[in-house]
Amino acid sequence: MADSMKLHILGCYAATPRSDTQPTAQVLECRNQLFLIDCAEGTQVQLRRNKIKFSRIDHIFISHLHGDHFFGLPGLLATFRLLGREKEIHIYGPEGLKEAITIMLRLGESEVGYPIHFHVLNKTGSDRIYENEKVTVDTIPLSHRVYTNGFLFTEKPKDLGLNVEAAEKYGIDTSQYRNIKKGKDVVLDDGKRIPNSKLTFPPKKVKSYAFCCDTAYEPKIIPLISGVDVMYHDATFLESEKHLAKKTGHSTAIEAASIAKQSKVGQLILGHFSTRYTSTEPFLIEALTEFPNTALAQDGKAFEW
Amino acid sequence: MADSMKLHILGCYAATPRSDTQPTAQVLECRNQLFLIDCAEGTQVQLRRNKIKFSRIDHIFISHLHGDHFFGLPGLLATFRLLGREKEIHIYGPEGLKEAITIMLRLGESEVGYPIHFHVLNKTGSDRIYENEKVTVDTIPLSHRVYTNGFLFTEKPKDLGLNVEAAEKYGIDTSQYRNIKKGKDVVLDDGKRIPNSKLTFPPKKVKSYAFCCDTAYEPKIIPLISGVDVMYHDATFLESEKHLAKKTGHSTAIEAASIAKQSKVGQLILGHFSTRYTSTEPFLIEALTEFPNTALAQDGKAFEW
Repeated sequence: MADSMKLHILGCYAATPRSDTQPTAQVLECRNQLFLIDCAEGTQVQLRRNKIKFSRIDHIFISHLHGDHFFGLPGLLATFRLLGREKEIHIYGPEGLKEAITIMLRLGESEVGYPIHFHVLNKTGSDRIYENEKVTVDTIPLSHRVYTNGFLFTEKPKDLGLNVEAAEKYGIDTSQYRNIKKGKDVVLDDGKRIPNSKLTFPPKKVKSYAFCCDTAYEPKIIPLISGVDVMYHDATFLESEKHLAKKTGHSTAIEAASIAKQSKVGQLILGHFSTRYTSTEPFLIEALTEFPNTALAQDGKAFEW
Repeated sequence: MADSMKLHILGCYAATPRSDTQPTAQVLECRNQLFLIDCAEGTQVQLRRNKIKFSRIDHIFISHLHGDHFFGLPGLLATFRLLGREKEIHIYGPEGLKEAITIMLRLGESEVGYPIHFHVLNKTGSDRIYENEKVTVDTIPLSHRVYTNGFLFTEKPKDLGLNVEAAEKYGIDTSQYRNIKKGKDVVLDDGKRIPNSKLTFPPKKVKSYAFCCDTAYEPKIIPLISGVDVMYHDATFLESEKHLAKKTGHSTAIEAASIAKQSKVGQLILGHFSTRYTSTEPFLIEALTEFPNTALAQDGKAFEW
């Protein structure tokens, strides 16, 4: 639905692609726009498997420069060229990304044939990095071994709902409907003013999504993601490997759930599972002790809200 | 068998990885050594699928710098590190490869933890780029849109076969066997010299493999690959798309077969199929009109000789 947010998990495992698990990449569908978040090796194949049209992706957000979050970028950009892409693409990521991708693409190919705009992320605080008439994207500074951002996607306030019955009752022409939905009163031909409140319903609630991966347990992000509908959070380790989480700048399932609880998010999605585990079920069991509305990410799974 | 060559096709399609087809990568097993030839995106996953141990790969040969032949390299090298690799790796490829791979690896990671030796290929004639006691590797200059090499793998002459029965008849001590296999005569305790020819069989035939991809029809390579046991040759297009082969610096199946015929190779393996075709069977049908001992490459298939 054009009105919902939909998250396609292309890969939700840590470290390295394997026969049956993919490293981080996901696509957020929001108001008919697609946002690609991270782009591990194999992302273009995962896009195909999940039947997501390459041509609908115009914005790519890279959280940090560990290989399992961006090594799929040269291949994806080269494939865009092969598919005849002409429209521009915007890539948001840390310093250095532009140089690395550019050198990879330039080596053997001629020009890619479409404009690539790199937007360097280097702020240490939250920053609005993208905005259009429907959605805003803000960084969520995370705590990892290297400079890392999460991303907060928030819909902009929606139009008021039109009370068609009321509008018809007053004999208002349909050409006025757009203005009414924007909050304007209507002045009838006889000069009578109909207040907007009589012609509208409250707007639908704006939806939001927070991607928080990779990160250690970091309570500083709580004010930034407070009350978001859905949060995807690093849950690389189980409680038994908490020492590894601490050492590597990752989180346990319970730490993810604790952030979710303190942030009062609607739903928590656990992801970035270490490939050392044969099952992800224990992640859910541990997180549920702390936060009830928790789900497990899974390659190829979609969430809609 | 330690005595045979074995070729694992990891990917044999052109241009871009898809759900069901992989771009170029293959592993040649020769005298207990593994040589990785090209390394498209997804190669590390294909290695896992084909149960090839990462730790056995010490030499990687990159034909040219189009993405579908090397975009899997950063990921593979990063995974080597994750697997705790300490021994060195040797990478042979065109100018620029080192810079691109180094910048990709350095971005977010610290040192990879093992030595990477880049060997720049820039000769326009055939060049011996690797040699040990068992095998030699020579470049095969190909004709493509960018600087491209094929690779010729040739076993070194093998030891003579030991005629154990004859050796025992003369009462020769087993400590002499190694010298006999190297061609030496034996002098018995009574001073009698046994000529080597009485104690040995001819050595087994040396085996060879030529990888010729990507390339247009290029008869100049014929003297270099004359009589090789197995040749893998670019067959991107069918005859009906011959104009595209010409335009893009690739070959048709018939052109590949023609090179095989003129070079008197033992077997031709067709590969690098354009993903525009839904079946590879027509490639075989067309090539067989020109050269009988032809096989189709297939992702995951192995050839042994």
